[in-house]
Order: sequence, then structure tokens, then C-alpha cells
Amino acid sequence: MAAPATPLLKDELDIVIPTIRNLDFLEMWRPFFQPYHLIIVQDGDPSKTIKVPDGFDYELYNRNDINKILGPRANCISFKDSACRCFGYMVSKKKYIFTIDDDCFVAKDPSGKDINALEQHIKNLLSPSTPFFFNTLYDPYREGVDFVRGYPFSLREGVPTAVSHGLWLNIPDYDAPTQLVKPLERNTRYVDAVLTIPKGTLFPMCGMNLAFDRDLIGPAMYFGLMGDGQPIGRYDDMWAGWCTKVICDHLGLGVKTGLPYIYHSKASNPFTNLRKEYKGIFWQEEIIPFFQSVVLPKECTTVQQCYRELAKMVKAKLSKVDGYFDKLAEAMITWIEAWDELNPPKGKLPNGNAK
Amino acid sequence: MAAPATPLLKDELDIVIPTIRNLDFLEMWRPFFQPYHLIIVQDGDPSKTIKVPDGFDYELYNRNDINKILGPRANCISFKDSACRCFGYMVSKKKYIFTIDDDCFVAKDPSGKDINALEQHIKNLLSPSTPFFFNTLYDPYREGVDFVRGYPFSLREGVPTAVSHGLWLNIPDYDAPTQLVKPLERNTRYVDAVLTIPKGTLFPMCGMNLAFDRDLIGPAMYFGLMGDGQPIGRYDDMWAGWCTKVICDHLGLGVKTGLPYIYHSKASNPFTNLRKEYKGIFWQEEIIPFFQSVVLPKECTTVQQCYRELAKMVKAKLSKVDGYFDKLAEAMITWIEAWDELNPPKGKLPNGNAK
Repeated sequence: MAAPATPLLKDELDIVIPTIRNLDFLEMWRPFFQPYHLIIVQDGDPSKTIKVPDGFDYELYNRNDINKILGPRANCISFKDSACRCFGYMVSKKKYIFTIDDDCFVAKDPSGKDINALEQHIKNLLSPSTPFFFNTLYDPYREGVDFVRGYPFSLREGVPTAVSHGLWLNIPDYDAPTQLVKPLERNTRYVDAVLTIPKGTLFPMCGMNLAFDRDLIGPAMYFGLMGDGQPIGRYDDMWAGWCTKVICDHLGLGVKTGLPYIYHSKASNPFTNLRKEYKGIFWQEEIIPFFQSVVLPKECTTVQQCYRELAKMVKAKLSKVDGYFDKLAEAMITWIEAWDELNPPKGKLPNGNAK
Repeated sequence: MAAPATPLLKDELDIVIPTIRNLDFLEMWRPFFQPYHLIIVQDGDPSKTIKVPDGFDYELYNRNDINKILGPRANCISFKDSACRCFGYMVSKKKYIFTIDDDCFVAKDPSGKDINALEQHIKNLLSPSTPFFFNTLYDPYREGVDFVRGYPFSLREGVPTAVSHGLWLNIPDYDAPTQLVKPLERNTRYVDAVLTIPKGTLFPMCGMNLAFDRDLIGPAMYFGLMGDGQPIGRYDDMWAGWCTKVICDHLGLGVKTGLPYIYHSKASNPFTNLRKEYKGIFWQEEIIPFFQSVVLPKECTTVQQCYRELAKMVKAKLSKVDGYFDKLAEAMITWIEAWDELNPPKGKLPNGNAK
């Protein structure tokens, strides 16, 4: 047998996993993940020990670590909620992030072959996106397909891809009301497509199976204030998705969705979910029109500038929905400050001196 | 064996076929098309006899018929180009149209089963669209799937679907340059999805395998001036697609793409295509930004009003690209006049007297 080729982006990608339990699920992913570095963000009780299967290269952060590293700014990182994963994005030093939940397993494609989800995400991120015009045969950069008749030639180079959003077989990512109404619904349809979400269109970004380019969009991938002490949960990835999409649209970056699938093993409790979600379910009726109307000033040319501007708009426009958005807007600023401290602009050292 | 159920919309749908040859291709479609009425638009020499296989219920119009029915307005209907098909849309008295090219055959799904393309189009048209927010599991109205977490509940009723755009296995719908560069490329990927093209996003609408709701969008389905005596060809469906999409967006109607597939049997000659297309290839670089910037006045509440307004904008903005667009804008008005004459508002007779 030929030796396996070097895994794609082996030294340029971190896998971020938020968890409260032993990471046995990694056994199934071993052939695909073992070459990569893992960043494990331990949620909940920091005195608990999380077991990681042998042979994985990882760093692990619990709440005490987060508090120590961020000091007073640690309050922007959620506790008792998988939103804490975004701390991993911040401490990574790599260009790419793949994040996955610990109840997600390797899915099979229709031929019965194990799907290397990470490899597909990397393909998605390394090929351009086409947000300005829809290609009816889906991703035009995939082998065996191209732009169709009528696609403007000036747009065929595409734009850099910032986000790759993967999907789920078995348990679909439904909200609590839909879970309650359709407890037995399973996703068995394998849709063999990747597509760019057009400019100006928002989508519900799920954090279960997600990859992105940290250099292009990292500072917008803040998962908000959820869980312990907050009035809301299960909107962490949605918040990041709305912010990310409007900033990608402003900066001319692409967001793809579709392949790869993972196998989502078990539905979370719909009653617990309803308690966490119910404010989000009515707030989103105002939040989404807000994001649909966001126009960022053209002076904002970096993700950080866009994100600070967005935080101001959130304060100005969403505080009337609930006082929570005041706190969230402040946390957005704290997040950006913390990001910039841990990720000083190239050519600058963290203490502010030039290199 | 149980008797087949009554075909869906049997008395509410016409199949429109533009052709220059005998319609032997209908043999393969017999199980699916025979219950429906066909409108055949004969292109080219009207003295030629087109043979239609026995057992089909059809009406056929050649150029002499078009001239007789439309009189001086017949000049808005293209000659020696499949754009003439739109005459069939105009003379139909049904609510729905399915149009298909005579080099399109029945495709097979991955299980090897013949695909009833018409049935899938009808399903697409009879279920709502979701143009305002993207559902990552695609058509949420399909069996076994729903709206995902984070999809606003206020948008889950969707909007009426005006257009269903189907795809092609085997020969993909490429422009001449792509055909020349990739003569052997075949589309073999069956993507098992239907999705709504989001509001504000344009797409290249292909007329090969297309269905629409005449009552909702018919008057916008004008295929322009192509072929004999015109500087351009192969942009008939594109033109209709751009006009249709901006009007659907304005009126809150949906456009779907994806399933069903047909089997497209043979590539047209790329050299001939290049001659027909080359002006379109550079004109589209200005036409598409024009359509992307179109804002219809909110006073326009019918397709006809929108279309007349669009014709004015075409004259004002695209005439500088080429004198052709002046002629096209006038033809758009002629088309609408002819449409209204053949399709008087309900409650009115063609001669203008109230019923």
C-alpha cells in the first residue's frame, strides 16, 4: 500500500472541540483528525478531567485557563454552553479552524464510504466562492462541472471563501418546537452539492460542523453570551452566522454550505432546548430584519472595524428588544479587544512594540 | 395493477415545445406527457410538415399562424430561434406551462428509475418558496425535511412559487467558449435538491426544462428578439430569466431551481453557438449589473405594470450598449400588448366590452 499523502493543511489548521465529557468520539475520527492539532475547550466544572484518546496532539483549556489568559475580559466567553468554543478560535495560531461537536460521528456517502469531513471543508475553503450570481450547477470549481451558459465571465474568478458550513445526516438541526412536533424525523438525504450563499442572503449557521479561515473572518466568529447567567442559549452559532455573513458580504468574501455531512448521533432534549431557545425564537423575528438592514460604512475595511461598527449598531437598534443586547454589544467589543491582544497585527508584538 | 391516478393538473397545464423537426422524442415521454395538452410552436419554414406521434393531444402553430393571430404585433416573436416558444405561452389558456426542448429525454434517478420531470415541476410549483432566508436543508416543504433551527417562524409559510427551473444530466448547458474548452464534459452528478433562489439574486435561467405559473408570472416570460434578423441568439431564456427574477422579487414570488433532471442528448455546435452568442457574452457584463440595480416602483402591482416599467428602463439604460436594446424595449411593449389582447383581464371580453 502506498504511504498516505501528507494531509492537507496539516500545519495550518486547528480542530476546536467544546466538550464536557471524555472525547471517545475521536476514536472514530482518528484516521482523519490524528495528523492535526486539537484545541479542546472544556466547558463546565474545571476540576473534572477530560480524557482524550491516546495519540492525539492537543491543548486543553478549562474555565480557570480562560480566566487566567483573558483576565477581566474572560466575561465575554460563555460558561456552561458550547459557545465557549470561540475561545479556541482566539487562542489558535493557525490560519484555518474546523470545529465539531462531540456527538458528531463519521457519516457515510451513498456508496457506503466514510466521509472525510475535514478534507471536504478544506476543499471548500481553498476554492473560491460565487456570491454575486447563482450557478445552477452549484459549485463551479468542482471537478466535472463549470459555470453554465449566461454566467458573466467577469465573475468567474470568484472571491476568497471565508466559511464552509457542513450539514448533518441522521438528527437534523431543528429547533425545540420542530423537535417536539417531529420527534422521529431523521435526515437521510445526501445532497451531493456545495453552494455559495448569495450576497445579501442570511442563513442559519450551525456550529456543529463548521470550518473557516481565521485570517479572513476569525474576529467575527464570536459565539456571544449564552448559557450560565444569560437569558438565552442555542443561539451562539446563529449570532456568529448573522454577524459573519453581513461582514463577509461587506468585505467581498464567500460563505459556502452543503457538503460535507457528519453523522449527528443524538437529539438534545427538546424540553431543555425550549427553555434555552424560547426568547431567541421571538427575538430572532427582530434580529434578522436588523441584520438584513445592516449597511457597514465603506471605511470599514478590516473584520475588526466591521465588528466594532456592528456592535454599535446592535446597541443602538437591538437594546429596545431586550437589555440583553446592551450586554451583548459590550461583550462584542470585549471579544475584539481580547482577540487583538492575543492576535496582534503582524509586525507588532503583543506588548505593542514593533518587531 | 391499480389504475394510474389522475395526472396532476391534467386540465390546468400545457406543454409548450418549439421545434423544427418531427417530434419522435415524445415517444419516450409518452407515459408522462400523453395526458396533457401540447402546444407546438413550429420554427422556420411553415410549409414543412412536423410529425407528431399518434395519441397526443396538440395544437400546432407555424409562422403563418403566428402572423395571422398577432398581425403587425407578430414582429415581437422571434423567427428561426427557439425563442419563438413564448408564443405558446401567450396562446395557452391554462394556469401552468411546462416547456421542454425536443433534444431532451427522460433521465434516470440514481436508483435507475425514470424521472417524471413534469410531476416534479408540478410539485415545485404547488409548494411555496422561501426567498427571504436560506434553509440549509434545502426545500423545507419536501417530505422528511423541515426548516432548521434559527429559521424565523414568521417566514415559514413561504410565498407562492412562480417558476420551477429544472436541470440537465449528460450535456450541461454551457456557453460556446466552455463547450470549446471542455468538449467532453458531461454532467453525471444527480443533486437531490430543490432550492429557492434568494431574493435579490439573479441566475441563468435555461429554457430547456422549465415550468411556471402563467397566472403569476406569464407576461414576464418573453423570450426576446433572437435569431433571424437579430444580432444575437441563445440569450432568449436568459433575458426572460433576468426579467422574471426581478419581477418575482418585486412582487414577492418565488423561483426554484434543482430537480427535476432531464437527459440532454446532444450538444449544439459550439462554432454556431459562438456566432450567436458572442455579442451576448460581452453585453451581459452590462446587462446583469443593470438588472441587479433595477428597483421597480411600488405602484407596480401587476406583472404587466412591472414589465412595462422594465421596458422603459431597458430603453433608458441599455440603449447606450447597443441600438438593439431600443428595438428590444419596443418589442417588450408589443409583447405585453399582444399578451393582454389574447388574455383579457377576467370579466372582460377581448373586444373590450364587459362580460
